Amino acid sequence: MKKVRVGVAGYGVIGQRLADGVALQQDMELVGIADVAPTLAIRALKEMGMPYKLYCAVPEKLGDLEKAGIPVSGMFADLLKNVDVMLDATTAGVGAKNKEMYRQAGIKAIFQGGEKNDVADVFFHGYANYEKGLGKQFLKLTSCNTTGFIRAVDCLDRLVGVEKVAVTIIRRVADPGDTHRGLVDVLQVDPVPSHQVLDLMHIMPHIKATGLLVHTPVTHGHIISMVLTPKKAITAAEAIAAFKAHPRMRVVRIEDGFNSNTSFFRYARDLGNKRGDMYEIGVWEETVGMSGDDLIFAINIPQEAVVIPETMDGIRACMEMEKDRLAAVGMTNKYLNLVAGR
Amino acid sequence: MKKVRVGVAGYGVIGQRLADGVALQQDMELVGIADVAPTLAIRALKEMGMPYKLYCAVPEKLGDLEKAGIPVSGMFADLLKNVDVMLDATTAGVGAKNKEMYRQAGIKAIFQGGEKNDVADVFFHGYANYEKGLGKQFLKLTSCNTTGFIRAVDCLDRLVGVEKVAVTIIRRVADPGDTHRGLVDVLQVDPVPSHQVLDLMHIMPHIKATGLLVHTPVTHGHIISMVLTPKKAITAAEAIAAFKAHPRMRVVRIEDGFNSNTSFFRYARDLGNKRGDMYEIGVWEETVGMSGDDLIFAINIPQEAVVIPETMDGIRACMEMEKDRLAAVGMTNKYLNLVAGR
Amino acid sequence: MKKVRVGVAGYGVIGQRLADGVALQQDMELVGIADVAPTLAIRALKEMGMPYKLYCAVPEKLGDLEKAGIPVSGMFADLLKNVDVMLDATTAGVGAKNKEMYRQAGIKAIFQGGEKNDVADVFFHGYANYEKGLGKQFLKLTSCNTTGFIRAVDCLDRLVGVEKVAVTIIRRVADPGDTHRGLVDVLQVDPVPSHQVLDLMHIMPHIKATGLLVHTPVTHGHIISMVLTPKKAITAAEAIAAFKAHPRMRVVRIEDGFNSNTSFFRYARDLGNKRGDMYEIGVWEETVGMSGDDLIFAINIPQEAVVIPETMDGIRACMEMEKDRLAAVGMTNKYLNLVAGR
Amino acid sequence: MKKVRVGVAGYGVIGQRLADGVALQQDMELVGIADVAPTLAIRALKEMGMPYKLYCAVPEKLGDLEKAGIPVSGMFADLLKNVDVMLDATTAGVGAKNKEMYRQAGIKAIFQGGEKNDVADVFFHGYANYEKGLGKQFLKLTSCNTTGFIRAVDCLDRLVGVEKVAVTIIRRVADPGDTHRGLVDVLQVDPVPSHQVLDLMHIMPHIKATGLLVHTPVTHGHIISMVLTPKKAITAAEAIAAFKAHPRMRVVRIEDGFNSNTSFFRYARDLGNKRGDMYEIGVWEETVGMSGDDLIFAINIPQEAVVIPETMDGIRACMEMEKDRLAAVGMTNKYLNLVAGR
Repeated sequence: MKKVRVGVAGYGVIGQRLADGVALQQDMELVGIADVAPTLAIRALKEMGMPYKLYCAVPEKLGDLEKAGIPVSGMFADLLKNVDVMLDATTAGVGAKNKEMYRQAGIKAIFQGGEKNDVADVFFHGYANYEKGLGKQFLKLTSCNTTGFIRAVDCLDRLVGVEKVAVTIIRRVADPGDTHRGLVDVLQVDPVPSHQVLDLMHIMPHIKATGLLVHTPVTHGHIISMVLTPKKAITAAEAIAAFKAHPRMRVVRIEDGFNSNTSFFRYARDLGNKRGDMYEIGVWEETVGMSGDDLIFAINIPQEAVVIPETMDGIRACMEMEKDRLAAVGMTNKYLNLVAGR
Repeated sequence: MKKVRVGVAGYGVIGQRLADGVALQQDMELVGIADVAPTLAIRALKEMGMPYKLYCAVPEKLGDLEKAGIPVSGMFADLLKNVDVMLDATTAGVGAKNKEMYRQAGIKAIFQGGEKNDVADVFFHGYANYEKGLGKQFLKLTSCNTTGFIRAVDCLDRLVGVEKVAVTIIRRVADPGDTHRGLVDVLQVDPVPSHQVLDLMHIMPHIKATGLLVHTPVTHGHIISMVLTPKKAITAAEAIAAFKAHPRMRVVRIEDGFNSNTSFFRYARDLGNKRGDMYEIGVWEETVGMSGDDLIFAINIPQEAVVIPETMDGIRACMEMEKDRLAAVGMTNKYLNLVAGR
Repeated sequence: MKKVRVGVAGYGVIGQRLADGVALQQDMELVGIADVAPTLAIRALKEMGMPYKLYCAVPEKLGDLEKAGIPVSGMFADLLKNVDVMLDATTAGVGAKNKEMYRQAGIKAIFQGGEKNDVADVFFHGYANYEKGLGKQFLKLTSCNTTGFIRAVDCLDRLVGVEKVAVTIIRRVADPGDTHRGLVDVLQVDPVPSHQVLDLMHIMPHIKATGLLVHTPVTHGHIISMVLTPKKAITAAEAIAAFKAHPRMRVVRIEDGFNSNTSFFRYARDLGNKRGDMYEIGVWEETVGMSGDDLIFAINIPQEAVVIPETMDGIRACMEMEKDRLAAVGMTNKYLNLVAGR
Repeated sequence: MKKVRVGVAGYGVIGQRLADGVALQQDMELVGIADVAPTLAIRALKEMGMPYKLYCAVPEKLGDLEKAGIPVSGMFADLLKNVDVMLDATTAGVGAKNKEMYRQAGIKAIFQGGEKNDVADVFFHGYANYEKGLGKQFLKLTSCNTTGFIRAVDCLDRLVGVEKVAVTIIRRVADPGDTHRGLVDVLQVDPVPSHQVLDLMHIMPHIKATGLLVHTPVTHGHIISMVLTPKKAITAAEAIAAFKAHPRMRVVRIEDGFNSNTSFFRYARDLGNKRGDMYEIGVWEETVGMSGDDLIFAINIPQEAVVIPETMDGIRACMEMEKDRLAAVGMTNKYLNLVAGR
């Protein structure tokens, strides 16, 4: 079978991981990545001997790359000629401009959560609405928080139905190494409802959702407190069992040492995972409890890597590599080594 | 009328503010404070010319105070002889030991939230269960988070009844200047339910409560996300109006610049408040919303000062200075300059 | 004697403290302050009952202030008509524009460190070059770090002569309550030399200086490590004695509990200082040591308030209220209650 | 040639990296690691399929490991029987107790910086005093900061001679994931001199050193500001050239994006380095400058991994695998892929 040819635009925090993710899919080929400047990520590519081919995304920037001694394999147009689908992980707003080039090249594209919804034909989540992405030219992924908590909500929704959910997003405010944004000794509050719950209702319109978002001065993973009203009664133990059976959720225990967002990051480094990444959202077993008939629990969102699996699902959907939702996410899980019950 | 004579044991973060609070009550007299070491707080007292009399709480420690040149007015026993009630803000566990001395001295005492419940006859909150404290010898105050959110829950409970509440406490982990505790780039998770919701149910046994607590690396105020199920329907606007009418709640707007926990601290400094303190809990107007029939809102707990008003209420209760709940809290509010509708 | 009439433009972190500082000088009159928006600081003014008169700095912004219910006493031009000197603490760049209005109004002005040096006739420090400011129309103050460490360098330079100094500035990156800037889990490095040492050499051209600046995710005071080569031998004990004799330096001991930058902030709050401010730089006695013949020591810079005394000196200089340097700084110290040997 | 058999006691932050380091040395064999509890690091070993054999370090703790389902290959005594040298990375104080067991087993041991100097025959640094470690039974490594800055000082000392050095250590206070220690919004100051400069003088007694240490609330690398007095004149360019020629130093430019301690961590993750680690200390080219004849520069210490190369050197020294200093460190560099001039 011919491999689907994929390119990545924007080799930043998300773009690097998208490239790694594609490289792991045995039914896909990573043709190359595109960027505009000799960032640390691009310099690291060079130091590693250019395992991924680099294309210059903007002609006028070629000189900057050459001056830094970075090998360039071609221009953006060259890349677009040789791919079936582009994963656009450029800075918010650039994707909307790139879209016209993708259209002219007659290729498909998947945009990340930073772009506006109207950039795409479908606002997509691999588990929650895979079928809607089938054959579409342009998909937009949910953002990191939304991608993560939809896994949990969808899991319970398919089990007992979910009537409503109230979330409190305790958001990390920067990624490790960022110096262009940050907070010091401040918890910053956004108005209710946050965009993440609006996004949830966009993807799952049969559920009522609201939520508060508080920005916190940390870098290793958002924590979300969920208060969820099920349609049919469910116990904490049943919820835990359902979460354990989900290949993209990792149920852990505070008692075992998983006592924070950063403990997942530490554990991923201990595992030797590339970049210290983890694709799974975490659930702390001791936080799953009842509030009357409502379920309360806390999840961890590894913001740097969480959207990678669902983006791979998106490729499968828009390229119609697989029609069946579970077969499609299962293929992604297999190649990313995501296994239930860890 | 004869003033009630009050002493304070432990001149730390809470003790200093209790002393200030008593000094403002025109129907009370601050006889003195007791401590054991020449801490920064005690050195500051000296630099200010000893506005409060210092008593040495432990005889063997007298030398340390004298060596640091701190004027000492007497020993702990001397203080106990001259007071009607002691406010015990010593380190957790010490209060339980002091209790025996208070009993022997035949005086009353109010312990802070760090002590175990059985140290006291009543677990007390000025607004929620004032009557239970009347005439008792030993009261224990709720801790800072519990004191704060009970104000909001009690406010709504008296208006429409509260069936249940699920809280997410985003907890500051240290006070400004602390070096003996802290977290760096970590959000630490505790098991559900946190002790604060158990305490709420202890004070208000007719309400079901659960909650998650997450420790965050900040110093200026806890933020609590509340999801509250009322017994009778209530709108966000009605809830806001009720909060605005509460003298110990301050409703603010993100739009006006109150966009974080620290904005309350900054504002209190801008106001010239002593120590940059604020007694009121804050509510962000834009966070009050509905989740179906449930109410969601976020509050700010100024952890250093929030328990002062309810402790003053406690003095009024145990000394039977005032039998009526609203009259009692009103007297405290008057002397602390707490006014509704700011 | 007629009081010098002073206005303050920009009622932010520095402007508020300048206004407070002027209000304490018995030979000056604070005519009013000017700002453009209903910030928290302005709202606090209103809640306090407008202890300082507010003038609207930009006509088009009057509506914003009125809409927020803030009492306005007049426009910027009205203020300029009634003052002898303006203290300009506006955002960097605005002062340069205001300068033309000050010139037209025929009044003097003192700019803060954020403006470029050419905005002023003299780059000023009360202790180091008071005489240069005498009678000048426009002064520019050194920035907070430079103002602070020049106190220490000038102190030793007048005692034994200073040949050169190498500083490491461990800089706080935001003020308490800031949400528009910050760093998370990062120490950010600037190229050598930092502007502060260039500024030092501008003020004290006979001294060679270099230095590194590292930004750190904290809000309560910069710490500067100084390695200073004296012209004549000096011991650590002699340096400590000289620092103790300086009314704008506070020598403290780690052993006594002053173990951090934030301990000064905590102590200022414990003292009941307005806004928790401290005008003095701190020196930790246990950090004063020798590196061969060089002196090493660490100082604390309370960034919010440190420039206030030298700005008051600047008013005395440009208005020629006092010709003698020590008499002038002594007057400022008296009104700000700055006493040697604390 | 027979491989030297190595064991690691304590599989924490340092122990994990020591094990990885040994596994990369082609002339050594990692026999196994020893620990006492099912920590996250041990659980990660299990999830990876036990790439390293685990020995139970304390008999009474065997049950805890078995209860957690961790495969155990034997007890501590079994491990000691099969190794030539133990790398002891246990908690401070435990190594001193283990020493007696090593002595009885007739094997050599290398202790980490947390132990007291008298635990060992020699206080060791691969570059600075390799010869002193030859054939000794017990070595103690310098701690992370000292190991790092000695590389730079030794480099210049062999080039032009170093007379004295004054350092300002801006110390990270916790590792990523730590919850047992931390600081919030505080820069904490230690007395001068810090132990690190005493350690430097212990290793290099011909150099005078002093230094200040300031603890900062970050996790990704210490930054040290160095003011160094050379015996013969040296320019900044010459120093940069010497640093570039050192295989364990990485000279970078702020201009290229290396603007912080965390940028090294980000870059190591971008490189795909295991655990996001870096063995080299960093030097920012733009921070190398002159203060008169003194050299000033800033270095970055990756605290989790920096001691690994010198510990490998220590194995070569105590086992007399190589008599020549440069040949020995060169062998370590080869196996760890440490190359000059990156």
